Amino acid sequence: MLHVIMLQRSTVIETTKLVGQEVLLKGWVHGRRDMGKLGFIDLRDRSGMVQVVLVPAELSSRGQEAMKDLRSEYCVAVTGVVKPRGEKQINPDLPTGTIEVLAKDIEIYNPSKTPPFDLTSDTRAINEEVRLKYRYLDLRSERMQRNLVLRDRVAQFFRDFLHKNGFVEIETPYLTKGTPEGSREFLVPARLHQGKFYVLPQSPQQFKQLMMVAGMERYFQMARCFRDEDQRGDRQPEHTQFDLEMSFVEREDVMSLIEELYVELIKTVTPHKRIQQVPFPRLTYKEAMEKYGNDKPDLREDKNDPNVLAFAWVVDFPFFEKAEDGGWTYSHNPFSAPKPEHREWLMEKKNIGDILTTQYDIVLNGFEIGGGSIRNHEPDALKKVFEILGHSEEDIQEKFGHMLEAFSYGAPPHGGIGPGLDRLVMILTNEQNIREVIAFPKTGDARDLMMGAPSEIEEKRLREAHIQIKK
Amino acid sequence: MLHVIMLQRSTVIETTKLVGQEVLLKGWVHGRRDMGKLGFIDLRDRSGMVQVVLVPAELSSRGQEAMKDLRSEYCVAVTGVVKPRGEKQINPDLPTGTIEVLAKDIEIYNPSKTPPFDLTSDTRAINEEVRLKYRYLDLRSERMQRNLVLRDRVAQFFRDFLHKNGFVEIETPYLTKGTPEGSREFLVPARLHQGKFYVLPQSPQQFKQLMMVAGMERYFQMARCFRDEDQRGDRQPEHTQFDLEMSFVEREDVMSLIEELYVELIKTVTPHKRIQQVPFPRLTYKEAMEKYGNDKPDLREDKNDPNVLAFAWVVDFPFFEKAEDGGWTYSHNPFSAPKPEHREWLMEKKNIGDILTTQYDIVLNGFEIGGGSIRNHEPDALKKVFEILGHSEEDIQEKFGHMLEAFSYGAPPHGGIGPGLDRLVMILTNEQNIREVIAFPKTGDARDLMMGAPSEIEEKRLREAHIQIKK
Repeated sequence: MLHVIMLQRSTVIETTKLVGQEVLLKGWVHGRRDMGKLGFIDLRDRSGMVQVVLVPAELSSRGQEAMKDLRSEYCVAVTGVVKPRGEKQINPDLPTGTIEVLAKDIEIYNPSKTPPFDLTSDTRAINEEVRLKYRYLDLRSERMQRNLVLRDRVAQFFRDFLHKNGFVEIETPYLTKGTPEGSREFLVPARLHQGKFYVLPQSPQQFKQLMMVAGMERYFQMARCFRDEDQRGDRQPEHTQFDLEMSFVEREDVMSLIEELYVELIKTVTPHKRIQQVPFPRLTYKEAMEKYGNDKPDLREDKNDPNVLAFAWVVDFPFFEKAEDGGWTYSHNPFSAPKPEHREWLMEKKNIGDILTTQYDIVLNGFEIGGGSIRNHEPDALKKVFEILGHSEEDIQEKFGHMLEAFSYGAPPHGGIGPGLDRLVMILTNEQNIREVIAFPKTGDARDLMMGAPSEIEEKRLREAHIQIKK
Repeated sequence: MLHVIMLQRSTVIETTKLVGQEVLLKGWVHGRRDMGKLGFIDLRDRSGMVQVVLVPAELSSRGQEAMKDLRSEYCVAVTGVVKPRGEKQINPDLPTGTIEVLAKDIEIYNPSKTPPFDLTSDTRAINEEVRLKYRYLDLRSERMQRNLVLRDRVAQFFRDFLHKNGFVEIETPYLTKGTPEGSREFLVPARLHQGKFYVLPQSPQQFKQLMMVAGMERYFQMARCFRDEDQRGDRQPEHTQFDLEMSFVEREDVMSLIEELYVELIKTVTPHKRIQQVPFPRLTYKEAMEKYGNDKPDLREDKNDPNVLAFAWVVDFPFFEKAEDGGWTYSHNPFSAPKPEHREWLMEKKNIGDILTTQYDIVLNGFEIGGGSIRNHEPDALKKVFEILGHSEEDIQEKFGHMLEAFSYGAPPHGGIGPGLDRLVMILTNEQNIREVIAFPKTGDARDLMMGAPSEIEEKRLREAHIQIKK
């Protein structure tokens, strides 16, 4: 059987073009049926599935031994000859349903214990804690593989589109300083600096603005963002966004570029989906609240059509909101610019509740899938925002001094947006939960059941990091 | 001047094709010279630089006011007419040296304080702490912008090449569980689980192997890797690698794919570079140590030629090394497979010091730029490694139980590599330090001087994370 070694591997899907030829296939036993002395296995690889016929008399002695052992999820190499199926045996539901492979030799790479759940049915019906613990088995299902492949295609489309439009992808640090505003952040003790901490960024907001100060003009990054918030169905401690920022632009420039991006994305990656309305409808925050009672309305006319996509923009949010303590807080992002016609109110700190921000949110089928704004690039005007938010002069210098300093060296007008990847891919795959489109998600209480994270850490390592557990 | 508003922005480099036309340029004042009533500014944007001539009589009244103020690094919009230069005024060193722009109007977007260092000369001569504090100014230099753009092109080439070869990019978590082996890891206290911690991954090693168990067959990821080690010149607390893994492969498959990747990369992205020898020479660890005294030899025949690239592979490393405590430790990666001919020695735990690993390192001009191996996909054999390393049965189950469990469900033979991005781009840009090719690097003692990280954190936030500082 020396010739076996010389054969190059074919993928399962290629077999239909190799009728009459000897092929070497590698993959997993998806299922097995026996009929008397004959055996049939469905052999699965990333490309699909094919029927392999096991006839002892046709098999090498190693193959005959293997035939006795073979069970579901065994990892094997099969050498065999591709045969056309008889008219009646053709399976129109299977892309390889016109052929089968008569096995000559089988090598078992690795046996498999019985999986804790059935991989051949829809795993969404399985208890999710079990799925997450054995995620490497759950990901073997065709649906999960398709979801991850689509996620990659969406990401690659974003990258190609942005590169074509003159953007440069630039990585920014994950060990950084916290923003005292916004969501709760994860802390990372600094071993080399006792009593000090890095934080994991909620987004690259400050870095991307500093990139504009640096004259990069068009930056993007597929960025991981970290938020230590109590988890909800569509929240994870880490999520991914296509963070981008542009110089010398107004609101309309960013919105039209992003609209073009989504329209082209759908055409290219999920052409079976239909965008309900182009250009995307635009609602003011006030209209959205009055008409739909929320600021991410689901505008689909036919909610039963799984292939309709109702994009919309929501704009003209109030910049400031009354805080619980009676002072002012910001509605979206303190680094945003107010609408140009409200700049004077900001500078004079009057009509504060009426100042509108340049914020634009993009909404799809009732989910917010991204948000951004034109930024406040004038240090004096930005300082007014922090004053309205109740920060003392000293506080402003300590927390935002580096940004105000940066903006005093000829910062350009700039703006951007951060389209999320998780929710978008969830909608495009018709899934109900972002965990279905993330390879290794965490549970609702932020545990990784497969790896066993978070976990206890040896005393010695805590000491090195200059921390101890507070009981 | 209403027509000004209607003009679309041109980039500086486009002006040479717009002679006689009115253009709108946006960018920064790179420098200014005055000759009597005439002024000249070099206007810089990401595309390059152009000379703008200021003649008061030609300028709008706003332009005349601006002309009085304009200084280096002011951010401006200039409207003007592109004029050919006289024969004698042509500057052959400047891509736009055949033309100049006679300004009609100037808008100052943002003034600039005097920068703390000269941005027009080679900033490598400047004190690095000052450069890092004002990184957003340092990045305005042509060299730094070119470095970041090349980094993006290299990354995009990797992605395109791997996609073409059937790889899927898949994101893995940054909040995970530690590997008790390897470098020191950064800790992240878990707010929802008192006394427990996530760690930031040294690499996606375990996840990428679990992806192979999951049947993804060809995975890659441009992954951030975190190591809390004492810093050296070419180390950073976070670095980037193109992590990849393939199923059903042997050492030769991975090495030849990666060799093709680097050869094509150089041809495409830095065609002015010359690879000294293709196929890349291969050295055993023993040969490298005997002949060069180290395992990442610089094989360049002409070390004065800045455009020569001497790639090489180093293979056949010992799997185990004697540890300080007299036991065994591993040289590279405990998850590697031994060379096939030494598998029996591993299973019988004999000739331990002579067992060679399937590890392959790729070396370029004296730097290790990537390393990988064929993995040990058989749970019994992997367990032998941990036994040799001195782990108790209980210890093995606690620390590696999830991997051994995963491998018992038909794990395929697999292997991979993790080509680093930082050092590669450093070499391709002829830089001496990886900080020159990272947008926002940290100092030797892991501080971010621009953001002020790490920093002190309010008591309240430490309490939420269930930790306190150990004095």
